[in-house]
Amino acid sequence: MDERTVFFLSDQTGVTAETLGHSLLTQFESRDFRQVTLPFIDTLDKAREAVEKINKAAQNGGPRPVVFSTMVQDDFRAIIRQANGLHLDIFDVFLEPLEKELKQKSTHTAGRAHGMSDIDSYMKRIEATNFALANDDGGISRNYEVADVILVGVSRSGKTPTCLYLALQYGVYAANYPLTDEEFDSGDLPEILMKQKKKLFGLTIAPARLRQIRKERRPVGRYSSVQQVGFEVRSAEQIFKRNNVPYIDTTEFSIEEISSRILDGTGVERRVRP
Amino acid sequence: MDERTVFFLSDQTGVTAETLGHSLLTQFESRDFRQVTLPFIDTLDKAREAVEKINKAAQNGGPRPVVFSTMVQDDFRAIIRQANGLHLDIFDVFLEPLEKELKQKSTHTAGRAHGMSDIDSYMKRIEATNFALANDDGGISRNYEVADVILVGVSRSGKTPTCLYLALQYGVYAANYPLTDEEFDSGDLPEILMKQKKKLFGLTIAPARLRQIRKERRPVGRYSSVQQVGFEVRSAEQIFKRNNVPYIDTTEFSIEEISSRILDGTGVERRVRP
Repeated sequence: MDERTVFFLSDQTGVTAETLGHSLLTQFESRDFRQVTLPFIDTLDKAREAVEKINKAAQNGGPRPVVFSTMVQDDFRAIIRQANGLHLDIFDVFLEPLEKELKQKSTHTAGRAHGMSDIDSYMKRIEATNFALANDDGGISRNYEVADVILVGVSRSGKTPTCLYLALQYGVYAANYPLTDEEFDSGDLPEILMKQKKKLFGLTIAPARLRQIRKERRPVGRYSSVQQVGFEVRSAEQIFKRNNVPYIDTTEFSIEEISSRILDGTGVERRVRP
Repeated sequence: MDERTVFFLSDQTGVTAETLGHSLLTQFESRDFRQVTLPFIDTLDKAREAVEKINKAAQNGGPRPVVFSTMVQDDFRAIIRQANGLHLDIFDVFLEPLEKELKQKSTHTAGRAHGMSDIDSYMKRIEATNFALANDDGGISRNYEVADVILVGVSRSGKTPTCLYLALQYGVYAANYPLTDEEFDSGDLPEILMKQKKKLFGLTIAPARLRQIRKERRPVGRYSSVQQVGFEVRSAEQIFKRNNVPYIDTTEFSIEEISSRILDGTGVERRVRP
């Protein structure tokens, strides 16, 4: 019973508390945590229920819980703080210096961060998501003139999830175009892409990793064979070099990293900041 | 020139610094900030460049910059701290109490939080995204037996972006099924959904808001008419009530809120914690 429970508490979604907690916890070797998110603690009763849950976890004989929280209101934080655990709350620590610096009192209003405070930003994210879906895999729309960036790469190099992440997180219009035999044979990119050359960004990936990913989809056949995967990756990289398309190797990167590197590498502006 | 610049600095993607900063800044009425993300500060030279950028913003005559940062290494933080600004860094504040509590030294390694520390979690997110795409809009696969949750609602009630967000953020398998005339006429849900009744979760939305969203897509015609939108929303809510399908009103919610409320309401476990 020496598993430690980590709580993520919030008067809202809990996304910030989770993000904070994970950034900190990944700095430790031991990762034996039971993780519990308690979102939408927006009444005093719910705050007391959360305290009970934390205390119950503390009574299991193991080490006491760690509580990452983002509780805007002082009185809610005061209740939560009665629970037996290590309490780490960003508002507790950062709100006061920020109030001093901005020479403003904070509004202490719950639910501003990931709330519908801004219908405009919701619409932008939805529109960008629709754009990514319509312009996925070289498909349907090919509305490349309104794209912020067009990702180019072989099948399963990470294009689709990256486009969707860019859309949902940042409202960025990301299209993607898969390289296939047509491009491998000619070594060229099609005219429709060359017209938007400045928007192109390549994704490459280590052949061994690509095989592993493709095998999940189709375990046998040419698609995931050593020869084919190696040929495609080599050809794609040659196309990028020959056409001066900037590219990154996604092998060791998460979706967040690929996305951040694309924004950083292209200078594309976030349309929305979540 | 009294616009204040807010920096989000990181030795990695900057996602955590942005999340932290936005949660705090949304607590203030004034939102006149120029926002700059400087990710991947992983060399001392890049740290010094960041300092120059902050100092340059500070010299523009306006109020000094606010710097939200997640810099794991002490020596990098020490350099950044020389810049003229208010510095708020989560590792500065929270790492020490956490080290004491966990009785472990942190590894002080950059890039663990949103890095490819875990290929397994990358694959899960990709698989869940593919699932959402294949099972979007009642389409193609209808692999409802492996779904964690099936969102049901009228066109443009937020189903698709929510499914994609659940997949990308949490690795959750979310399918969605659009309610159309067939369901409105019968008042029933199709057999394929009723077989998975426990997984169903409804989304509803205020008719006025739905009209606004639909008009973006098709400005004229029945699809976005007052009558049609009102009829669809009423019919959908009746179907939810009649079939005991839990549902939420997405009108005032962001994608993060809808997603968190679905997880909270259904008890579906996150397969991945980002």
